[in-house]
Amino acid sequence: MVMEASWETSVADSINTIYLLFSAYLVFVMQLGFAMLCAGSVRAKNTMNIMLTNVVDAVVGSISYYLFGFAFAFGVGPDSNPFIGSRYFALKDIPNNTYDYSFFLYQWAFAIAVAGITSGSIAERTQFGAYLVYSFFLTGFVYPIVAHWVWSSSGWLSASSTGWLLFGSGAIDFAGSGVVHLVGGIAGLWGALIEGPRVGRFDAFGKPVPMRGHNATLVVLGTFLLWFGWFGFNPGSFDKVLVPYPDTTDQGNWTGVGRTAVTTTLAGSMAGVVTLFGRRLIVGHWDALDVCNGVLGGFVAITSGCSVVEPWAAIVCGFVAAWVLIVLNMVALKLNFDDPLEAAQLHGGCGAWGLIFTGLFAKREFVIQAYDSGESGITRPYGILLGGGWGLFGAQVMEVLVIVAWVSITMGPLFYALKKLRVLRISVDEETAGLDISSHGGYAYVANPENYPRFYAEYVQTE
Amino acid sequence: MVMEASWETSVADSINTIYLLFSAYLVFVMQLGFAMLCAGSVRAKNTMNIMLTNVVDAVVGSISYYLFGFAFAFGVGPDSNPFIGSRYFALKDIPNNTYDYSFFLYQWAFAIAVAGITSGSIAERTQFGAYLVYSFFLTGFVYPIVAHWVWSSSGWLSASSTGWLLFGSGAIDFAGSGVVHLVGGIAGLWGALIEGPRVGRFDAFGKPVPMRGHNATLVVLGTFLLWFGWFGFNPGSFDKVLVPYPDTTDQGNWTGVGRTAVTTTLAGSMAGVVTLFGRRLIVGHWDALDVCNGVLGGFVAITSGCSVVEPWAAIVCGFVAAWVLIVLNMVALKLNFDDPLEAAQLHGGCGAWGLIFTGLFAKREFVIQAYDSGESGITRPYGILLGGGWGLFGAQVMEVLVIVAWVSITMGPLFYALKKLRVLRISVDEETAGLDISSHGGYAYVANPENYPRFYAEYVQTE
Amino acid sequence: MVMEASWETSVADSINTIYLLFSAYLVFVMQLGFAMLCAGSVRAKNTMNIMLTNVVDAVVGSISYYLFGFAFAFGVGPDSNPFIGSRYFALKDIPNNTYDYSFFLYQWAFAIAVAGITSGSIAERTQFGAYLVYSFFLTGFVYPIVAHWVWSSSGWLSASSTGWLLFGSGAIDFAGSGVVHLVGGIAGLWGALIEGPRVGRFDAFGKPVPMRGHNATLVVLGTFLLWFGWFGFNPGSFDKVLVPYPDTTDQGNWTGVGRTAVTTTLAGSMAGVVTLFGRRLIVGHWDALDVCNGVLGGFVAITSGCSVVEPWAAIVCGFVAAWVLIVLNMVALKLNFDDPLEAAQLHGGCGAWGLIFTGLFAKREFVIQAYDSGESGITRPYGILLGGGWGLFGAQVMEVLVIVAWVSITMGPLFYALKKLRVLRISVDEETAGLDISSHGGYAYVANPENYPRFYAEYVQTE
Repeated sequence: MVMEASWETSVADSINTIYLLFSAYLVFVMQLGFAMLCAGSVRAKNTMNIMLTNVVDAVVGSISYYLFGFAFAFGVGPDSNPFIGSRYFALKDIPNNTYDYSFFLYQWAFAIAVAGITSGSIAERTQFGAYLVYSFFLTGFVYPIVAHWVWSSSGWLSASSTGWLLFGSGAIDFAGSGVVHLVGGIAGLWGALIEGPRVGRFDAFGKPVPMRGHNATLVVLGTFLLWFGWFGFNPGSFDKVLVPYPDTTDQGNWTGVGRTAVTTTLAGSMAGVVTLFGRRLIVGHWDALDVCNGVLGGFVAITSGCSVVEPWAAIVCGFVAAWVLIVLNMVALKLNFDDPLEAAQLHGGCGAWGLIFTGLFAKREFVIQAYDSGESGITRPYGILLGGGWGLFGAQVMEVLVIVAWVSITMGPLFYALKKLRVLRISVDEETAGLDISSHGGYAYVANPENYPRFYAEYVQTE
Repeated sequence: MVMEASWETSVADSINTIYLLFSAYLVFVMQLGFAMLCAGSVRAKNTMNIMLTNVVDAVVGSISYYLFGFAFAFGVGPDSNPFIGSRYFALKDIPNNTYDYSFFLYQWAFAIAVAGITSGSIAERTQFGAYLVYSFFLTGFVYPIVAHWVWSSSGWLSASSTGWLLFGSGAIDFAGSGVVHLVGGIAGLWGALIEGPRVGRFDAFGKPVPMRGHNATLVVLGTFLLWFGWFGFNPGSFDKVLVPYPDTTDQGNWTGVGRTAVTTTLAGSMAGVVTLFGRRLIVGHWDALDVCNGVLGGFVAITSGCSVVEPWAAIVCGFVAAWVLIVLNMVALKLNFDDPLEAAQLHGGCGAWGLIFTGLFAKREFVIQAYDSGESGITRPYGILLGGGWGLFGAQVMEVLVIVAWVSITMGPLFYALKKLRVLRISVDEETAGLDISSHGGYAYVANPENYPRFYAEYVQTE
Repeated sequence: MVMEASWETSVADSINTIYLLFSAYLVFVMQLGFAMLCAGSVRAKNTMNIMLTNVVDAVVGSISYYLFGFAFAFGVGPDSNPFIGSRYFALKDIPNNTYDYSFFLYQWAFAIAVAGITSGSIAERTQFGAYLVYSFFLTGFVYPIVAHWVWSSSGWLSASSTGWLLFGSGAIDFAGSGVVHLVGGIAGLWGALIEGPRVGRFDAFGKPVPMRGHNATLVVLGTFLLWFGWFGFNPGSFDKVLVPYPDTTDQGNWTGVGRTAVTTTLAGSMAGVVTLFGRRLIVGHWDALDVCNGVLGGFVAITSGCSVVEPWAAIVCGFVAAWVLIVLNMVALKLNFDDPLEAAQLHGGCGAWGLIFTGLFAKREFVIQAYDSGESGITRPYGILLGGGWGLFGAQVMEVLVIVAWVSITMGPLFYALKKLRVLRISVDEETAGLDISSHGGYAYVANPENYPRFYAEYVQTE
């Protein structure tokens, strides 16, 4: 009965819209989380600068993603191809009677996160103009292309492709360990490499000089906000929680959505615990900031496989992610590589591990649930350690390699060109004085006498 | 079949309750956003004061809105009239078997926001007792009356009136550019005018003296939290996402809800981009705080028309909003008008622009969708630039004029009376010392020696 | 028709999953709220420590609750008993086709909150190793047992027991005034008692010496975040918003969910208003921090009865809660009891009051709605002041007594043993220097010269 079907479609559309929009709002909170994490991790003299970059990611990113980015990523139509989308520029011709707007908003929140990751790597020494250029290019072009490959229904790497599946499988990158984090991390790697370390970060003998962020409270605030936002990032990536009857006999993703929230939590938590004790052994104290980064590393890693692994596997994922981060940070110090937010190590390293992890531990039942809607008896590859063959693992490795290559050949030359044009890095004088006073009109904090009651009391008395 | 209908009503009620309640929670976050924005924008010596006013808005506002406000705004019944509601005082007789409680909570979150806007205009110089009086009066009476006019089903300005429609249209103020922001802004305008500028804000020649807020991190935190909350404010204002079958053939608002989230995002983002480059041209640096305010100006402006305009129009809206704010801020400086949060300019100016904008760009299809539920073939006016005639535009202009008049004749005399009674403004001594030490028992920040490791190290050594 | 029923179950499961998961996310925000509240309430030298305890509550709590806690609390099966759960260790055998994962996540967010409450009581003087021990024990064992008694379907105190009901009623502790807050508060009471006051908190004559937290902005931030999170805590505790037809004729909890959000808001607000004026009378100024704690006290108290009382009763609840907190704080000072966050008074005192309050004011209609699903004509006790007899009141008193006893005989000896082993409290030297420098590798705030533009300007000039 037509009317009956229409009612059921209405119910499903309503439920899915609520689910997708509120998930998008949570992902947006990650932008605030990044801003606070970054602000707390840099020196006070660069706070205004790093916060502005996070605000600009959101506002410039909105415009570029609206104009081009969404179209490149998800503009799939009759003239579709596996490499780049080609419609919906400026949301033109997007249907006004579906929840495509909600989908756009959800994807927008992902897009603006990418440039935020990269901004951490090149913090405290980059010209603001250069920031605007690379942020626009990354959000509007480099990232959407990868999203098209892996997430769109016509992408050549996509596990939900309606056509050809790479190695009979496609890469499973559910919420974007690769698409978002590895892309942001590799871009940051090239940025930080080409800019070089901050002035004074390593002494004449290459020994690292501590250069602590100015406010640990902001770091913890940012970490918890990112955790909160990750609940939109990972469980939200099912896009739909209810499939309208009678399209399929398996009508809902609700159990998968809940399980994804649980695997996410456990991976981040385990990584936090391992970092707490691991760093205690290595540096001799209980370091809150290390634990924060460890937790984030666990989240980054589970982001690829969150929907297709058992909770116990998520614990394995977090355990390894913590060590990946610890080791990469040691290597970075040895190589005099300076990334103020550890973004290349964290988002790049743990992101790559996350893709590999999924190739090892993805469970057959969950892969079918998340990628086949259970309507057919297709056998598709799953985790190699669970007996699922090499197809998925191969696709995962392919995604790592292809992302590293694509981001390197686009962002590497861009940063290099900006450097050659002398618009990438600020002068040593500006770096010493701080970006806030040289480029942003003043410090983030104003030292009113009132900040110092003791001094102020003396000051009043002497009047 | 009765039972079948009951199930469908249950589904719709459940979905709408979730949607409305979680939207209400987001709007509540705006209270936190205001608190942080305000705190960061004032000097450290007045931080405790401004934060307390934001907390008090919430707690005193809850009680007054529960006792009177909601009844004045939405207490529509058999004895309804177009000017003021008359039932549901203290939630008496509100049905216990509907989701009216959720609606109350959603409206409560709006009500407490209004006084928060105004508190910014009169920050750093107002007696706390005066604050309590005007806040109670504004939240419990002035604002609810306007809400009744524009939003209730019996309001004389309402576009969703079940009776008469002004100019055959009624004013479209979907989420309250006028009802919330213009009301708060005009109240702030009168407060700031009657109090006069802060001590030292303008020198003897009327030249402005910079008086920067003490913490830019809090400003950015507040801005992002407001953005997050705006996703409840605007898309949430549909109230229902699913209409229970068989009430109507158009069963859902989901596409409108998603589109509203998108227009909101684009307007705020465009305003931020324009402010970034506009202020760069004018003041010569990239100013993070200006961008924050620009983004908020864009949100304020789109709040009226968010559900009835195309995304491209939202970009126009944000573009103009940014310039409205920039120009009004220049005018304010020229006139030696001192509003520490730019609240009158931002919420008043951009709020008024938002109402006008809707009269220009509202799209026929969306107006029907949001205000007619599509069940009839009524032709109603829409945006004048899209060929929709003068009806809507006239109603929008009427709303601007009426709000300015109503708030002026209520709040103006109130502030004036408080001034005459010498309970409005603190003394110059208190203002110099700061409100925190004079009225709130101490500073917000305690300068433990531990805040200053360098000094502390010396201190320990000399022990 | 089977297929029809399956569709309806799918709809209900989808709706309930969204509702429960997003509520869980909000409850998780409370962990951030606690972190900020605690950070702002301690001295700057212990900020890193207290924030790390809050992060560790989350990450260690995740693992212990996954391994044991959830099983002890909700592992109900054929071998069920009224005292402790016995299955689902490490989520083993949890069904993969229901929304049990969402339920786990929701309960996890509650579990990690408990240790956070206690951490406030023993702040600024506890060894980190001791913290790890008691946190693991409290989250993994002490708390889950109480949750099993009161919330599981086989608990001996449970009002939703499928078997025997204590006094024909069972204790109504809807969202955990007792299970969460009283447990956390009593644990904190023993911790603070056994550790003794902070060095310098009371002078030689037992007179209290003010020892203010270092940052009031963080306190307000934390309070608002806790308020936000409480919307998940209380209304979320219905677990289901829609019951799948044809299980029951009363198909939904949506009105109860909305009403619960309203009672919560009103109780917190009233407590805030009372504290504002009450403390003004007592101490002579308008104290923002007192108001924050008052609001939280109101929330703690209403948490037990939020779903079963009228809004006017919630106002009574908040009124009394404020005075409970004010009086207990005075008593604590008199007795030289030092709890830096007032956690024992706030969560313990107001939590106990909340349980009693429910026994007085629970309304018959709402008790049936929340605990009987209305399907049967069972008469069960309700509030004694509304004529509901002694059954409910007795069960509420029993819950208070039993929680105090159980937590005392478990946590008391644990803290005592840690003290005897000399691993509970830090040395006087470490306490003077601060935990951050002694145990966590450095201060939370780094005093870059850039923090002090005035000093910095001089510094630059003299170079």
